[in-house]
Amino acid sequence: MATPTHLLKDELDIVIPTIRNLDFLEMWRPFLQPYHLIIVQDGDPTKTIKVPEGFDYELYNRNDINRMLGPRSNCISFKDSACRCFGYMVSKKKYIFTIDDDCFVAQDPSGKLVNALEQHIKNLLCPSTPFFFNTLYDPFREGADFVRGYPFSLREGVPTAVSHGLWLNIPDYDAPTQLVKPLERNTRYVDAVLTIPKGTLFPMCGMNLAFDRDLIGPAMYFGLMGDGQPIGRYDDMWAGWCIKVICDHLGLGVKTGLPYIYHSKASNPFVNLRKEYKGIFWQEEIIPFFQAAVLPKDCTTVQACYIELSKQVKDKLGKVDPYFDKLADAMVTWIEAWDELNPSGPGAKIAK
Amino acid sequence: MATPTHLLKDELDIVIPTIRNLDFLEMWRPFLQPYHLIIVQDGDPTKTIKVPEGFDYELYNRNDINRMLGPRSNCISFKDSACRCFGYMVSKKKYIFTIDDDCFVAQDPSGKLVNALEQHIKNLLCPSTPFFFNTLYDPFREGADFVRGYPFSLREGVPTAVSHGLWLNIPDYDAPTQLVKPLERNTRYVDAVLTIPKGTLFPMCGMNLAFDRDLIGPAMYFGLMGDGQPIGRYDDMWAGWCIKVICDHLGLGVKTGLPYIYHSKASNPFVNLRKEYKGIFWQEEIIPFFQAAVLPKDCTTVQACYIELSKQVKDKLGKVDPYFDKLADAMVTWIEAWDELNPSGPGAKIAK
Repeated sequence: MATPTHLLKDELDIVIPTIRNLDFLEMWRPFLQPYHLIIVQDGDPTKTIKVPEGFDYELYNRNDINRMLGPRSNCISFKDSACRCFGYMVSKKKYIFTIDDDCFVAQDPSGKLVNALEQHIKNLLCPSTPFFFNTLYDPFREGADFVRGYPFSLREGVPTAVSHGLWLNIPDYDAPTQLVKPLERNTRYVDAVLTIPKGTLFPMCGMNLAFDRDLIGPAMYFGLMGDGQPIGRYDDMWAGWCIKVICDHLGLGVKTGLPYIYHSKASNPFVNLRKEYKGIFWQEEIIPFFQAAVLPKDCTTVQACYIELSKQVKDKLGKVDPYFDKLADAMVTWIEAWDELNPSGPGAKIAK
Repeated sequence: MATPTHLLKDELDIVIPTIRNLDFLEMWRPFLQPYHLIIVQDGDPTKTIKVPEGFDYELYNRNDINRMLGPRSNCISFKDSACRCFGYMVSKKKYIFTIDDDCFVAQDPSGKLVNALEQHIKNLLCPSTPFFFNTLYDPFREGADFVRGYPFSLREGVPTAVSHGLWLNIPDYDAPTQLVKPLERNTRYVDAVLTIPKGTLFPMCGMNLAFDRDLIGPAMYFGLMGDGQPIGRYDDMWAGWCIKVICDHLGLGVKTGLPYIYHSKASNPFVNLRKEYKGIFWQEEIIPFFQAAVLPKDCTTVQACYIELSKQVKDKLGKVDPYFDKLADAMVTWIEAWDELNPSGPGAKIAK
């Protein structure tokens, strides 16, 4: 088994949204115990969440969120794991790793336990290559490099803002696919990390995700989902579309692939279908919107990019459904709340 | 060991450029013997190339090329494996698999021999997904699918025109990287196939490559390299840039990843450096050129796209070096020769 890592111990917070006791952390102890946890308790705030002994954590429930953000707390979703982004906002660290409480430690093909956090840190600490595809995948991994024909001027790469990890066992399928393939399990361990090219969008899953809060934090807003909203299960997708457009604009990289976690339990496809069905047709308009979105040159901070994007959302997606008007407003509220909690925060500087 | 496959036996030719006896085919016998070979003999045409018994083949040497193409034969390179594209032109089949004579059968992590051709055929027969990235890689592979958030309107995909396979053991590095890392070997078997997104260029290696000749054949020109030319080892790169721009324009897909072959022997880095050095600085201008290239809507056949691209090459890259003027002319000659040898050929139809 891998030994505990203390990599970036003082520079990284782990954000976990939950409604239950965090027994799943027992299995993660060798890898995650050195780190500080930010637990965002969803649902009933009077319930007590038990955290295994020895973990260092702070916990916020709905009452805390309401108290800390006041009227702006309406930008934080309730009864949906989208509430996790509150944890990104209250963190003061450079890096965030967020993980769902039904995710366990995966094994690589040799049977070795996968230290997911260590791999995320590797991904974030080495550059991305969004401008040209490298056929041997991440050229910065041991035993790999840029192949013949890769322009030398692009080999320095760009800073990596996001590391998107994958899932063995239960794949992250939508409700229709879950219903059609209830028994499908992901057993294929693909030993690769790669940069998602500039101009290409991807479906970002929030289950096993790390990012550089200084570089992209203010864009990691998980939207309005769950209680009182017409939609769920699009929180991470929304964030993924926004961060990709902004990373492309600011010259930052997004990696996907390793590390894997073991996703233990499929959520109920019938419940999921109810949450998703509007998203399933809305995304047919949202994705072309994000594919066509262009940010002006004078947007040089994440905040400026995000505010600009919120205007375009209101302008272009407001026609699709009034929900997007509300979401565009919440995007602005989120940035206001972020800047209030991070007055001279690193998110405010940045960018070329 | 896998049993021989007869998949597409009458629809596929294997093209091998060589200057020596084809002993390497012995190891491939179980997989390749059912297929017809087109051998393009490079160098001294008086030399006899021995082909292992039992293989069905036709062989063309330089005298054959000169006789068949007449004055147009100057578009086919000499003393460079770029001559292989002559084989694409004389084939009458729908699919081409081309492989170098120093490539052997790889083993997957379980020790099973990899039937590279079978995997190429799988890649070519299932659609590509160039418009949105699927984080579980090729959604059409067994045990995989489109993940949550993948637009349903894009799940049909587009026809796959090119399947780019990889190499274990000796990686396809340029001369500077070979010199710096003489001992590096590729031992990482990445069990993935993925579509290279629309708008993203990649370094296409000709060592282990398959394509749909009907869909993209006339663009698979390997340029002017070797004897009498200022450059070598950019033949496949050139073809890769051209086919990607044209596939993107015509709505066709390019896949990379599996299958692996075992690449046995590194070529001499000092010789390679001499061949490559102009390419190493030219590519800094060539790649932005291809990244910016736009084809007009009325280019609806591969031939029309390719002729248009040749004009843009002359116009934009002619300034970089007179070589590109010559290359642009050769691109036109290539299409003329292609159309002469394929009068009502499938390349002439196509496209949306």
